[in-house]
Amino acid sequence: MWHQRDLTLKPHPRGFHLITREVVSALPELAGIRVGLLHVFIQHTSASLTVSENASPDVRRDFERYFNHAVPDGWADFEHTLEGDDDMAAHIKASVLGAGLSLPVRDGRLALGTWQGVYLCEHRNSGGARRLVLTLMGE
Amino acid sequence: MWHQRDLTLKPHPRGFHLITREVVSALPELAGIRVGLLHVFIQHTSASLTVSENASPDVRRDFERYFNHAVPDGWADFEHTLEGDDDMAAHIKASVLGAGLSLPVRDGRLALGTWQGVYLCEHRNSGGARRLVLTLMGE
Amino acid sequence: MWHQRDLTLKPHPRGFHLITREVVSALPELAGIRVGLLHVFIQHTSASLTVSENASPDVRRDFERYFNHAVPDGWADFEHTLEGDDDMAAHIKASVLGAGLSLPVRDGRLALGTWQGVYLCEHRNSGGARRLVLTLMGE
Repeated sequence: MWHQRDLTLKPHPRGFHLITREVVSALPELAGIRVGLLHVFIQHTSASLTVSENASPDVRRDFERYFNHAVPDGWADFEHTLEGDDDMAAHIKASVLGAGLSLPVRDGRLALGTWQGVYLCEHRNSGGARRLVLTLMGE
Repeated sequence: MWHQRDLTLKPHPRGFHLITREVVSALPELAGIRVGLLHVFIQHTSASLTVSENASPDVRRDFERYFNHAVPDGWADFEHTLEGDDDMAAHIKASVLGAGLSLPVRDGRLALGTWQGVYLCEHRNSGGARRLVLTLMGE
Repeated sequence: MWHQRDLTLKPHPRGFHLITREVVSALPELAGIRVGLLHVFIQHTSASLTVSENASPDVRRDFERYFNHAVPDGWADFEHTLEGDDDMAAHIKASVLGAGLSLPVRDGRLALGTWQGVYLCEHRNSGGARRLVLTLMGE
Protein backbone atom coordinates (compact mmCIF):
# COMPACT_ATOMS: atom_id res chain seq x y z
CA MET A 1 0.00 0.00 0.00
CA TRP A 2 1.45 3.32 -1.09
CA HIS A 3 0.36 6.85 -0.24
CA GLN A 4 2.09 10.05 -1.20
CA ARG A 5 1.25 13.56 -0.18
CA ASP A 6 2.77 17.04 -0.35
CA LEU A 7 2.98 19.05 2.82
CA THR A 8 3.88 22.73 2.70
CA LEU A 9 5.23 24.00 6.00
CA LYS A 10 4.60 27.62 6.90
CA PRO A 11 7.77 29.76 7.00
CA HIS A 12 9.90 29.09 10.08
CA PRO A 13 12.66 31.33 11.41
CA ARG A 14 16.23 30.15 10.99
CA GLY A 15 16.83 27.36 13.49
CA PHE A 16 15.61 23.89 14.43
CA HIS A 17 11.89 23.18 14.84
CA LEU A 18 9.81 20.17 15.90
CA ILE A 19 7.41 19.16 13.14
CA THR A 20 6.44 15.60 14.12
CA ARG A 21 2.80 16.52 14.73
CA GLU A 22 2.38 18.30 11.41
CA VAL A 23 3.90 15.40 9.51
CA VAL A 24 1.71 12.79 11.20
CA SER A 25 -1.46 14.88 10.83
CA ALA A 26 -0.91 15.20 7.11
CA LEU A 27 -1.22 11.42 6.67
CA PRO A 28 -4.42 9.98 8.12
CA GLU A 29 -3.63 6.78 6.17
CA LEU A 30 -0.88 6.09 8.71
CA ALA A 31 -3.53 4.65 11.04
CA GLY A 32 -4.16 1.81 8.61
CA ILE A 33 -0.56 0.58 8.33
CA ARG A 34 0.44 -2.37 10.53
CA VAL A 35 4.09 -2.53 9.37
CA GLY A 36 5.75 -0.03 7.11
CA LEU A 37 7.93 3.01 6.56
CA LEU A 38 7.26 6.71 6.25
CA HIS A 39 9.69 8.59 4.04
CA VAL A 40 9.88 12.35 4.54
CA PHE A 41 11.73 14.39 1.94
CA ILE A 42 12.37 18.13 1.74
CA GLN A 43 12.49 19.56 -1.80
CA HIS A 44 15.09 22.22 -0.97
CA THR A 45 18.87 22.46 -0.70
CA SER A 46 19.12 25.02 2.11
CA ALA A 47 16.91 23.35 4.71
CA SER A 48 17.01 19.80 5.99
CA LEU A 49 15.45 17.16 8.24
CA THR A 50 16.77 15.26 11.22
CA VAL A 51 15.58 13.24 14.21
CA SER A 52 16.57 14.42 17.68
CA GLU A 53 15.38 15.16 21.20
CA ASN A 54 11.72 16.19 21.38
CA ALA A 55 11.48 17.74 24.84
CA SER A 56 13.96 20.54 25.57
CA PRO A 57 13.93 23.71 23.46
CA ASP A 58 17.52 24.33 24.58
CA VAL A 59 18.64 21.29 22.56
CA ARG A 60 17.25 22.91 19.43
CA ARG A 61 18.97 26.21 20.25
CA ASP A 62 22.26 24.32 20.78
CA PHE A 63 21.89 22.71 17.35
CA GLU A 64 21.60 26.16 15.82
CA ARG A 65 24.62 27.50 17.73
CA TYR A 66 26.77 24.47 16.99
CA PHE A 67 26.07 24.37 13.26
CA ASN A 68 26.65 28.11 12.91
CA HIS A 69 30.04 27.54 14.50
CA ALA A 70 30.91 24.48 12.41
CA VAL A 71 29.79 26.02 9.10
CA PRO A 72 30.15 29.81 9.43
CA ASP A 73 28.03 32.14 7.31
CA GLY A 74 30.21 33.83 4.73
CA TRP A 75 33.19 31.53 5.37
CA ALA A 76 36.20 33.19 3.71
CA ASP A 77 36.84 30.31 1.29
CA PHE A 78 33.31 30.15 -0.12
CA GLU A 79 33.10 31.10 -3.78
CA HIS A 80 29.29 30.86 -4.09
CA THR A 81 28.33 34.10 -2.34
CA LEU A 82 25.86 35.84 -4.67
CA GLU A 83 22.77 34.75 -2.73
CA GLY A 84 23.98 36.03 0.64
CA ASP A 85 26.27 34.96 3.46
CA ASP A 86 23.84 32.34 4.74
CA ASP A 87 23.33 30.58 1.40
CA MET A 88 26.40 28.42 0.87
CA ALA A 89 26.59 27.58 4.58
CA ALA A 90 22.96 26.45 4.30
CA HIS A 91 23.80 24.06 1.45
CA ILE A 92 26.58 22.45 3.48
CA LYS A 93 24.48 22.09 6.63
CA ALA A 94 21.60 20.66 4.59
CA SER A 95 23.84 17.94 3.17
CA VAL A 96 25.38 17.11 6.54
CA LEU A 97 21.93 16.64 8.09
CA GLY A 98 20.22 15.31 4.99
CA ALA A 99 17.16 15.94 2.81
CA GLY A 100 15.33 12.72 3.69
CA LEU A 101 14.33 10.53 6.63
CA SER A 102 12.84 7.04 6.67
CA LEU A 103 10.91 6.27 9.85
CA PRO A 104 9.54 2.89 10.89
CA VAL A 105 5.75 2.51 11.17
CA ARG A 106 4.07 0.01 13.49
CA ASP A 107 0.41 -0.53 14.37
CA GLY A 108 -0.70 2.71 12.77
CA ARG A 109 1.92 4.96 14.37
CA LEU A 110 5.51 6.07 13.90
CA ALA A 111 7.76 3.71 15.87
CA LEU A 112 9.95 6.47 17.28
CA GLY A 113 11.76 6.29 20.61
CA THR A 114 10.24 8.10 23.58
CA TRP A 115 12.47 11.14 23.18
CA GLN A 116 12.62 11.32 19.39
CA GLY A 117 10.99 13.95 17.21
CA VAL A 118 11.33 15.13 13.62
CA TYR A 119 13.09 18.47 13.16
CA LEU A 120 12.80 20.92 10.32
CA CYS A 121 16.28 22.47 10.11
CA GLU A 122 15.88 25.90 8.57
CA HIS A 123 19.32 27.13 7.52
CA ARG A 124 18.34 30.36 5.71
CA ASN A 125 17.56 33.68 7.37
CA SER A 126 14.35 33.88 5.34
CA GLY A 127 13.73 30.45 3.91
CA GLY A 128 10.02 30.90 3.37
CA ALA A 129 7.52 28.06 3.12
CA ARG A 130 9.13 24.64 2.66
CA ARG A 131 7.69 21.76 0.65
CA LEU A 132 7.86 18.18 1.92
CA VAL A 133 6.97 15.01 0.04
CA LEU A 134 5.62 12.32 2.36
CA THR A 135 5.66 8.76 1.06
CA LEU A 136 4.02 6.08 3.15
CA MET A 137 4.40 2.41 2.30
CA GLY A 138 3.53 -0.78 4.13
CA GLU A 139 0.74 -3.21 4.77
CA MET B 1 6.53 -8.80 1.97
CA TRP B 2 7.14 -6.90 5.19
CA HIS B 3 8.86 -8.01 8.39
CA GLN B 4 9.60 -5.89 11.41
CA ARG B 5 11.53 -6.80 14.48
CA ASP B 6 13.01 -5.11 17.54
CA LEU B 7 16.64 -5.77 18.37
CA THR B 8 18.08 -4.68 21.69
CA LEU B 9 21.85 -4.33 21.59
CA LYS B 10 23.77 -5.00 24.77
CA PRO B 11 25.47 -1.91 26.25
CA HIS B 12 28.56 -0.86 24.30
CA PRO B 13 31.30 1.46 25.51
CA ARG B 14 31.44 4.93 23.98
CA GLY B 15 32.85 4.58 20.47
CA PHE B 16 32.13 2.94 17.13
CA HIS B 17 31.25 -0.76 16.92
CA LEU B 18 30.58 -3.22 14.11
CA ILE B 19 27.09 -4.73 14.43
CA THR B 20 26.45 -6.14 10.95
CA ARG B 21 26.36 -9.71 12.18
CA GLU B 22 23.89 -9.01 14.99
CA VAL B 23 21.57 -7.14 12.64
CA VAL B 24 21.59 -9.89 10.03
CA SER B 25 21.14 -12.67 12.60
CA ALA B 26 18.05 -10.98 14.00
CA LEU B 27 16.25 -11.35 10.66
CA PRO B 28 16.19 -14.92 9.36
CA GLU B 29 13.51 -13.74 6.88
CA LEU B 30 16.27 -11.95 4.97
CA ALA B 31 17.14 -15.26 3.31
CA GLY B 32 13.78 -15.28 1.53
CA ILE B 33 14.06 -11.84 -0.09
CA ARG B 34 15.25 -11.73 -3.70
CA VAL B 35 15.13 -7.92 -4.06
CA GLY B 36 14.43 -5.50 -1.26
CA LEU B 37 15.60 -3.11 1.40
CA LEU B 38 16.47 -3.43 5.06
CA HIS B 39 15.81 -0.35 7.14
CA VAL B 40 17.64 -0.12 10.46
CA PHE B 41 16.53 2.54 12.92
CA ILE B 42 17.85 3.43 16.37
CA GLN B 43 15.23 4.70 18.83
CA HIS B 44 17.61 7.07 20.63
CA THR B 45 18.96 10.58 20.16
CA SER B 46 22.44 10.11 21.61
CA ALA B 47 23.59 7.11 19.56
CA SER B 48 23.50 6.63 15.82
CA LEU B 49 24.15 4.31 12.88
CA THR B 50 26.50 4.54 9.93
CA VAL B 51 28.14 2.38 7.28
CA SER B 52 31.93 2.33 7.10
CA GLU B 53 35.03 0.17 6.84
CA ASN B 54 34.58 -3.29 8.33
CA ALA B 55 38.17 -4.51 8.68
CA SER B 56 40.47 -2.22 10.67
CA PRO B 57 39.71 -1.43 14.31
CA ASP B 58 41.89 1.67 13.96
CA VAL B 59 39.31 3.19 11.59
CA ARG B 60 36.70 2.91 14.34
CA ARG B 61 39.07 4.49 16.86
CA ASP B 62 39.75 7.35 14.43
CA PHE B 63 36.01 7.95 14.08
CA GLU B 64 35.79 8.34 17.85
CA ARG B 65 38.78 10.70 17.99
CA TYR B 66 37.63 12.80 15.07
CA PHE B 67 34.05 13.28 16.29
CA ASN B 68 35.23 14.13 19.81
CA HIS B 69 37.35 16.84 18.23
CA ALA B 70 34.63 18.13 15.90
CA VAL B 71 31.92 18.16 18.59
CA PRO B 72 33.66 18.61 21.95
CA ASP B 73 32.02 17.38 25.15
CA GLY B 74 30.87 20.35 27.21
CA TRP B 75 31.44 22.85 24.40
CA ALA B 76 31.34 26.33 25.99
CA ASP B 77 28.32 27.50 24.00
CA PHE B 78 26.07 24.56 24.85
CA GLU B 79 23.08 25.53 26.96
CA HIS B 80 21.68 22.00 27.45
CA THR B 81 24.16 20.73 30.06
CA LEU B 82 22.03 19.20 32.82
CA GLU B 83 22.56 15.61 31.67
CA GLY B 84 26.35 15.79 31.56
CA ASP B 85 29.10 17.05 29.30
CA ASP B 86 28.66 14.20 26.83
CA ASP B 87 24.92 14.64 26.35
CA MET B 88 24.50 17.60 24.02
CA ALA B 89 27.57 16.60 22.01
CA ALA B 90 25.94 13.18 21.62
CA HIS B 91 22.75 14.71 20.19
CA ILE B 92 24.75 16.64 17.57
CA LYS B 93 26.89 13.65 16.56
CA ALA B 94 23.78 11.47 16.34
CA SER B 95 22.13 13.88 13.90
CA VAL B 96 25.27 14.27 11.79
CA LEU B 97 25.56 10.49 11.40
CA GLY B 98 21.84 9.73 11.44
CA ALA B 99 19.31 7.53 13.21
CA GLY B 100 18.47 5.36 10.23
CA LEU B 101 20.04 3.38 7.40
CA SER B 102 18.45 1.75 4.37
CA LEU B 103 20.50 -1.08 2.93
CA PRO B 104 19.86 -2.91 -0.35
CA VAL B 105 18.98 -6.61 -0.20
CA ARG B 106 19.72 -9.04 -3.01
CA ASP B 107 19.33 -12.82 -3.21
CA GLY B 108 18.74 -13.21 0.49
CA ARG B 109 21.68 -11.08 1.65
CA LEU B 110 22.62 -7.48 2.28
CA ALA B 111 24.16 -6.07 -0.91
CA LEU B 112 26.99 -4.27 0.87
CA GLY B 113 30.38 -3.58 -0.66
CA THR B 114 33.27 -5.84 0.31
CA TRP B 115 34.58 -3.42 2.90
CA GLN B 116 31.30 -2.12 4.28
CA GLY B 117 29.85 -2.85 7.68
CA VAL B 118 27.14 -1.37 9.90
CA TYR B 119 28.39 0.62 12.89
CA LEU B 120 26.65 1.38 16.13
CA CYS B 121 27.94 4.82 17.08
CA GLU B 122 27.66 5.12 20.86
CA HIS B 123 28.09 8.76 21.79
CA ARG B 124 27.35 8.57 25.54
CA ASN B 125 29.81 7.49 28.23
CA SER B 126 27.21 5.07 29.58
CA GLY B 127 24.55 4.75 26.94
CA GLY B 128 23.23 1.41 28.12
CA ALA B 129 21.32 -1.05 25.94
CA ARG B 130 20.12 0.45 22.65
CA ARG B 131 16.92 -0.48 20.85
CA LEU B 132 16.84 -0.90 17.06
CA VAL B 133 13.78 -1.37 14.86
CA LEU B 134 14.55 -3.51 11.82
CA THR B 135 12.11 -3.26 8.91
CA LEU B 136 12.59 -5.61 5.99
CA MET B 137 10.63 -5.18 2.78
CA GLY B 138 10.89 -6.73 -0.66
CA GLU B 139 9.87 -9.74 -2.68
CA MET C 1 6.93 -3.67 -7.91
CA TRP C 2 10.64 -3.98 -7.25
CA HIS C 3 13.58 -3.40 -9.59
CA GLN C 4 17.24 -3.51 -8.71
CA ARG C 5 20.19 -2.66 -10.86
CA ASP C 6 23.92 -2.09 -10.52
CA LEU C 7 25.39 1.06 -11.97
CA THR C 8 29.15 1.48 -12.27
CA LEU C 9 30.20 5.11 -12.50
CA LYS C 10 33.33 5.93 -14.46
CA PRO C 11 36.20 7.26 -12.32
CA HIS C 12 35.63 10.85 -11.19
CA PRO C 13 38.29 13.21 -9.84
CA ARG C 14 38.21 14.02 -6.15
CA GLY C 15 35.30 16.41 -5.55
CA PHE C 16 31.53 16.66 -5.90
CA HIS C 17 29.80 15.68 -9.15
CA LEU C 18 26.22 15.76 -10.42
CA ILE C 19 25.04 12.27 -11.38
CA THR C 20 21.23 12.64 -11.47
CA ARG C 21 21.05 11.98 -15.19
CA GLU C 22 23.16 8.82 -15.05
CA VAL C 23 21.10 7.42 -12.19
CA VAL C 24 17.77 8.09 -13.92
CA SER C 25 18.98 6.73 -17.26
CA ALA C 26 20.01 3.46 -15.66
CA LEU C 27 16.42 2.73 -14.64
CA PRO C 28 13.96 2.87 -17.54
CA GLU C 29 11.44 1.16 -15.21
CA LEU C 30 11.10 4.48 -13.37
CA ALA C 31 8.67 5.63 -16.06
CA GLY C 32 6.17 2.97 -14.99
CA ILE C 33 6.01 3.93 -11.29
CA ARG C 34 3.14 6.18 -10.20
CA VAL C 35 4.13 6.37 -6.51
CA GLY C 36 7.31 4.99 -5.04
CA LEU C 37 10.87 5.42 -3.85
CA LEU C 38 14.26 5.11 -5.48
CA HIS C 39 17.04 4.01 -3.17
CA VAL C 40 20.58 4.75 -4.31
CA PHE C 41 23.44 3.10 -2.44
CA ILE C 42 27.20 3.35 -2.94
CA GLN C 43 29.16 0.18 -2.14
CA HIS C 44 32.25 2.01 -0.88
CA THR C 45 33.43 3.63 2.33
CA SER C 46 35.49 6.48 0.88
CA ALA C 47 32.91 8.03 -1.44
CA SER C 48 29.35 9.07 -0.66
CA LEU C 49 26.07 10.45 -1.99
CA THR C 50 24.14 13.60 -1.20
CA VAL C 51 21.43 15.86 -2.60
CA SER C 52 22.27 19.50 -3.20
CA GLU C 53 22.10 22.41 -5.62
CA ASN C 54 22.07 21.32 -9.27
CA ALA C 55 22.93 24.55 -11.08
CA SER C 56 26.14 26.27 -9.96
CA PRO C 57 29.48 24.48 -10.27
CA ASP C 58 30.85 26.84 -7.60
CA VAL C 59 28.57 25.19 -5.02
CA ARG C 60 30.24 21.86 -5.75
CA ARG C 61 33.70 23.43 -5.48
CA ASP C 62 32.71 24.98 -2.13
CA PHE C 63 31.62 21.56 -0.86
CA GLU C 64 35.07 20.21 -1.68
CA ARG C 65 36.84 23.15 -0.01
CA TYR C 66 34.65 23.06 3.08
CA PHE C 67 34.95 19.32 3.69
CA ASN C 68 38.73 19.40 3.18
CA HIS C 69 38.86 22.06 5.87
CA ALA C 70 36.49 20.25 8.25
CA VAL C 71 38.19 16.86 7.85
CA PRO C 72 41.83 17.50 6.92
CA ASP C 73 43.82 14.90 5.00
CA GLY C 74 46.41 13.36 7.27
CA TRP C 75 44.94 14.88 10.43
CA ALA C 76 47.57 14.50 13.16
CA ASP C 77 45.40 12.29 15.40
CA PHE C 78 44.52 9.72 12.74
CA GLU C 79 45.95 6.29 13.44
CA HIS C 80 44.75 4.63 10.21
CA THR C 81 47.30 6.11 7.79
CA LEU C 82 48.64 3.16 5.80
CA GLU C 83 46.50 3.81 2.72
CA GLY C 84 47.50 7.46 2.35
CA ASP C 85 46.63 10.84 3.81
CA ASP C 86 43.30 11.02 2.03
CA ASP C 87 42.02 7.63 3.19
CA MET C 88 40.87 8.10 6.76
CA ALA C 89 39.53 11.59 5.98
CA ALA C 90 37.53 9.97 3.18
CA HIS C 91 35.94 7.46 5.58
CA ILE C 92 34.83 10.27 7.90
CA LYS C 93 33.42 12.43 5.10
CA ALA C 94 31.63 9.44 3.63
CA SER C 95 29.86 8.75 6.92
CA VAL C 96 28.94 12.40 7.47
CA LEU C 97 27.33 12.59 4.02
CA GLY C 98 26.10 9.00 3.90
CA ALA C 99 26.22 5.93 1.68
CA GLY C 100 22.54 5.92 0.74
CA LEU C 101 19.72 8.17 -0.43
CA SER C 102 16.01 7.50 -0.72
CA LEU C 103 14.26 9.73 -3.24
CA PRO C 104 10.49 10.03 -3.77
CA VAL C 105 9.09 8.93 -7.13
CA ARG C 106 5.90 10.37 -8.61
CA ASP C 107 4.27 9.85 -12.02
CA GLY C 108 7.31 8.13 -13.49
CA ARG C 109 9.89 10.68 -12.35
CA LEU C 110 11.98 11.58 -9.33
CA ALA C 111 10.02 14.09 -7.23
CA LEU C 112 13.02 16.34 -6.58
CA GLY C 113 12.79 20.07 -5.95
CA THR C 114 13.62 22.40 -8.85
CA TRP C 115 17.18 22.99 -7.64
CA GLN C 116 18.00 19.52 -6.34
CA GLY C 117 20.40 17.06 -7.90
CA VAL C 118 22.18 13.89 -6.80
CA TYR C 119 25.90 14.28 -6.09
CA LEU C 120 28.61 11.67 -6.17
CA CYS C 121 31.03 12.80 -3.45
CA GLU C 122 34.45 11.40 -4.37
CA HIS C 123 36.70 11.72 -1.34
CA ARG C 124 39.78 9.86 -2.60
CA ASN C 125 42.46 11.31 -4.86
CA SER C 126 42.13 8.29 -7.14
CA GLY C 127 38.92 6.55 -6.17
CA GLY C 128 38.43 4.75 -9.46
CA ALA C 129 35.11 3.46 -10.76
CA ARG C 130 32.37 3.41 -8.11
CA ARG C 131 29.55 0.88 -7.88
CA LEU C 132 26.01 1.92 -7.04
CA VAL C 133 23.06 -0.33 -6.28
CA LEU C 134 19.77 1.21 -7.41
CA THR C 135 16.60 -0.20 -5.86
CA LEU C 136 13.28 1.02 -7.19
CA MET C 137 10.02 0.17 -5.44
CA GLY C 138 6.46 1.38 -5.82
CA GLU C 139 3.32 0.86 -7.81
